[in-house]
Amino acid sequence: MLADDALGSKRERYEQPLPESYIKAFQAITADPNNELIVACNGNDIIGVQQITYTPYITYQGGWRATIEGVRTISSERGKGIGTDLIQWGIQRAKDRGCHLVQLTTDKKREDALRFYERLGFKATHEGLKMKLY
Amino acid sequence: MLADDALGSKRERYEQPLPESYIKAFQAITADPNNELIVACNGNDIIGVQQITYTPYITYQGGWRATIEGVRTISSERGKGIGTDLIQWGIQRAKDRGCHLVQLTTDKKREDALRFYERLGFKATHEGLKMKLY
Repeated sequence: MLADDALGSKRERYEQPLPESYIKAFQAITADPNNELIVACNGNDIIGVQQITYTPYITYQGGWRATIEGVRTISSERGKGIGTDLIQWGIQRAKDRGCHLVQLTTDKKREDALRFYERLGFKATHEGLKMKLY
Repeated sequence: MLADDALGSKRERYEQPLPESYIKAFQAITADPNNELIVACNGNDIIGVQQITYTPYITYQGGWRATIEGVRTISSERGKGIGTDLIQWGIQRAKDRGCHLVQLTTDKKREDALRFYERLGFKATHEGLKMKLY
């Protein structure tokens, strides 16, 4: 799912066996109570995924935030609202964990994604700045 | 420092005693190996602060990212490069911890901040979307 994406196809390695870096990241995510990898399923098939990170900050009077990242739906299931279900699940989960804010960044090249998130109630109030280190 | 800021003045509570929510957030940050609160000091005085969160993701072949947030310099020390020192320290720290990316968001109202980060080498490739929950 990560590789089957206009941007992801350039940066992922979908091989058998899966590169160990993916396994290690999966283990680090599942071992951390402030990180959750959420999957959407249709029967036994995984058809969507997202990661949510919960972070305590001293800003906003010591408020917790939820950061959503890596939202993907399998290509055969797109247009059926799986992404909407994932994000709405994430928003509810963030509320349940006491977060005051849900945030995410989306590549300016993904114009459809921006409209999708705005329809769900997100406001593009911030610039999302990135610096690649390697 | 958090309250002494055009946006922060509306959302922080700088009181004695400090509201317990700040203390709890500080304890949560310092207890988490993937969160660091970095201060810049002049002798015994704290003159700058930033928070760095290190997050493992399955995207980018299971790459770790560093997210910088809450960068503030005390008003009497602004224009002296403290913010630059903080961010450059953060970039080096992210490299030392093996992160492939440093990221942050900045409110579109903070035009000076955007130019500041771009001068340091960040690219505004993403939209930063937020949803307030309360």
